[in-house]
Amino acid sequence: MPQHSLAELAEITGAELRGDPLWQIARLSVPQAAGPHDLVFLLDPRWLPAIAASEAQAVLLSPQHWGPALASKYALLVSDVRPALAGLLRLFHAAPSHPPGIHPTAVLGDNCQIDPSAYIGPGCVLEQGVLIEAGVVLKAMVYVGAHTRIGRDSLIYPQVTLYDQVHLGERVIIHSGSVIGADGYGFYLHDGQHQKIPQIGGVLVEDDVEIGANVTVDRGTVGQTRIGAGSKIDNQVQIGHNVQVGQHCLLVAQVGISGSTVLGDYVTLAGQTGVAGHLHIGDGVVAAGKSGITHDIPAGQKVSGFPAQAHLRELKQQALLRRLPELFKRLRGGDV
Amino acid sequence: MPQHSLAELAEITGAELRGDPLWQIARLSVPQAAGPHDLVFLLDPRWLPAIAASEAQAVLLSPQHWGPALASKYALLVSDVRPALAGLLRLFHAAPSHPPGIHPTAVLGDNCQIDPSAYIGPGCVLEQGVLIEAGVVLKAMVYVGAHTRIGRDSLIYPQVTLYDQVHLGERVIIHSGSVIGADGYGFYLHDGQHQKIPQIGGVLVEDDVEIGANVTVDRGTVGQTRIGAGSKIDNQVQIGHNVQVGQHCLLVAQVGISGSTVLGDYVTLAGQTGVAGHLHIGDGVVAAGKSGITHDIPAGQKVSGFPAQAHLRELKQQALLRRLPELFKRLRGGDV
Amino acid sequence: MPQHSLAELAEITGAELRGDPLWQIARLSVPQAAGPHDLVFLLDPRWLPAIAASEAQAVLLSPQHWGPALASKYALLVSDVRPALAGLLRLFHAAPSHPPGIHPTAVLGDNCQIDPSAYIGPGCVLEQGVLIEAGVVLKAMVYVGAHTRIGRDSLIYPQVTLYDQVHLGERVIIHSGSVIGADGYGFYLHDGQHQKIPQIGGVLVEDDVEIGANVTVDRGTVGQTRIGAGSKIDNQVQIGHNVQVGQHCLLVAQVGISGSTVLGDYVTLAGQTGVAGHLHIGDGVVAAGKSGITHDIPAGQKVSGFPAQAHLRELKQQALLRRLPELFKRLRGGDV
Repeated sequence: MPQHSLAELAEITGAELRGDPLWQIARLSVPQAAGPHDLVFLLDPRWLPAIAASEAQAVLLSPQHWGPALASKYALLVSDVRPALAGLLRLFHAAPSHPPGIHPTAVLGDNCQIDPSAYIGPGCVLEQGVLIEAGVVLKAMVYVGAHTRIGRDSLIYPQVTLYDQVHLGERVIIHSGSVIGADGYGFYLHDGQHQKIPQIGGVLVEDDVEIGANVTVDRGTVGQTRIGAGSKIDNQVQIGHNVQVGQHCLLVAQVGISGSTVLGDYVTLAGQTGVAGHLHIGDGVVAAGKSGITHDIPAGQKVSGFPAQAHLRELKQQALLRRLPELFKRLRGGDV
Repeated sequence: MPQHSLAELAEITGAELRGDPLWQIARLSVPQAAGPHDLVFLLDPRWLPAIAASEAQAVLLSPQHWGPALASKYALLVSDVRPALAGLLRLFHAAPSHPPGIHPTAVLGDNCQIDPSAYIGPGCVLEQGVLIEAGVVLKAMVYVGAHTRIGRDSLIYPQVTLYDQVHLGERVIIHSGSVIGADGYGFYLHDGQHQKIPQIGGVLVEDDVEIGANVTVDRGTVGQTRIGAGSKIDNQVQIGHNVQVGQHCLLVAQVGISGSTVLGDYVTLAGQTGVAGHLHIGDGVVAAGKSGITHDIPAGQKVSGFPAQAHLRELKQQALLRRLPELFKRLRGGDV
Repeated sequence: MPQHSLAELAEITGAELRGDPLWQIARLSVPQAAGPHDLVFLLDPRWLPAIAASEAQAVLLSPQHWGPALASKYALLVSDVRPALAGLLRLFHAAPSHPPGIHPTAVLGDNCQIDPSAYIGPGCVLEQGVLIEAGVVLKAMVYVGAHTRIGRDSLIYPQVTLYDQVHLGERVIIHSGSVIGADGYGFYLHDGQHQKIPQIGGVLVEDDVEIGANVTVDRGTVGQTRIGAGSKIDNQVQIGHNVQVGQHCLLVAQVGISGSTVLGDYVTLAGQTGVAGHLHIGDGVVAAGKSGITHDIPAGQKVSGFPAQAHLRELKQQALLRRLPELFKRLRGGDV
């Protein structure tokens, strides 16, 4: 494995270097497992003692965390650790590329168009009329429904299911177990029986979207469910039919969004948040974890609680709630 | 693709027609994507402006939404839009039927009985003693455990897992990634270790049940977990061991039901609701989204909140909560 | 199927026998489905009427539930029903063992080491450098990433995905649809775009862990996500990158744990609980269902609610909440 000197790493990350520029770094590591030639990094000030105690000689961190506790270490000082860390991870741990080709155990339907630079791994099943662009990787056991299209350089992990008429943009990543394009939850009651409303729309996943593991994105009833460019979806998120997710949204694990709701751009929904159907969530809205959103939220607002309200109001309400015992006690002693 | 005149569509749906009976319709569409010969439909009054502005010449809607804004359109007027829409979707977008047969890449165990009209798609694995009735479709990569039975005309999407001893009724639909019959969560503590209680019961999914994507239904410890006829289960729902779901229930996305709880018929649990174990939820109970049900609920009640209580009481409590600041303010200014 | 006398069953379970020691038992059953030679069991006092009314002649229960209603039954009396039940289930329903071997449809990468006593079922895909120890069973359609190791006697159900560099200990059980080792949710914003932080760590699942269906456990960014020995994880649980779960923890269905949080040993998180990132949850902590944990919890505490607080305090707060109408009413009538 190639090593790099601290001087090289400082140049790559734009860091200010404290210490021996010729010190060799073999890999990135966590403090508990680090040897002298591993580079550790500080994302959270609570890691300081562990880093100080570790065998690593060199640390990547921001200047405000640099201090006497680390006096014996070399340091790469950067204003923002995350981008520098990402760059170094890409340097030291480049993802292996797949040689192109179609594994002999893959099953292909009629009229599939597969770019010769794509890789179709073992056990994949492609129905008729599938279009696979250049550089796409289907790792293994991926199911691709009829007339589904996968854009250039997308990476689909094992055991993903794409139903028919799904359209993925370029550089899309989908992790294992996710299901894109299953029927939306649409029924009506007739003579005491729930009758199915056929779900004949599609799903559009735009460029640079990443979808975690065991996510579900339902197809539109008519028209498309859409995930906007650059949005990142964590594991076990559920997105209902005809939902429109804007660009650059962050949907954290176990979020659920009901049918036909529209999210603007740069919306962040923290873990286990639920959003009712047919709502409009404005650009830049941030919802704290476990929020339950039951009405439209204007752009830029931070909300929390259930039913979700302005975050500061929710915090004040929680503070007063904790004072309820005091309130009841005063009333028992008073004249009321 | 065959076209149909508005007169034909009016007859099929029982609609009152306003406009040219000979106008040809090619397909159903959403307003944003519609051309002149697409039919759009109004499920939500908020869609009215988009429909008025769309290129579609014809609209399916109920009479109370028909008005001057749509004066230039033709209309199919029906008292209930959903059934009419469902009928037209079935007319224009009939699901393709699968030719019967067993794909050469499917793997079959001993003593399987497969009706010649069934379709077993690529990469399916059937263990010994599986029974597949007439008209069943296993799309691809479906795993069917030993002695599991799948009733007539059921449709199983790719990457579904049915453990052994699962029994599906007729016309059951299961979407991708769902797992039916995994072990229930049963342990006891012995000498500081959690010991497994073997889970040897089964799962019974009755006729006309639809199960969404990435759902989990655990097998009974002893006896069966049961999903009653006509119930519809949305994505990412979790159903614990020995749960009994009645007939015609609606379990919306990300609902979780703990072991041995019994649901009556026509129960609706909205998204992200959780139900504790060993409870009885009466017929026709409706729980709002994110409810946390911790005690039995009598038939017909509407509940919400956590711990769930009568919905009107919960709403009143929420209203008073929002008035807590006022309450504390008055107390600070008063004599108490 | 072999039968056993009540005398034998009493000896195996250490039970006190009331009734005919020669009475033959064919299997365990639930009251509704039991015949005379089935053994039923009482885990919940609410089952008493059903047991009294059932055709089963013999009951396994604890002495305090034994009474006149069961006068006509034979009884196996044990102080703790669960271990006795588990022992009898193992006696009557021994899991079938798999003959060793590699199914011809499995696809193996280079340099895999597979113990000859292991079973690799149909449709499995193993990438290069996989290590499979003695007695391991991969039922079918399991994906195993490069350099992943599976310890002795582990059982992996169909359609599980193990990414590369995952390490499973001995006697690990993983149910269908679970995904171990997908990328953690790590991004940083640069020029208005969310940039991916490569996730190059691994996952360590220690001995005797059981993981339910459709669970997701993300790999570490750097370093390992760890599930401690003997912990049991229910369906649809989400575990973020670099989370450390201690030994003998119970994580019930639909729990979500955000990145870098550390759980001590014997922690129990009930269903739908969410835990924020970078927290420390002490040994023996118990969180009630739907808890939302937003700060560190010291060892031994029982918490509930959102934001989670000491359970007794939460209960008191809920009781006062229900008295808010009374409070407002008194204030309206008073001088304040």
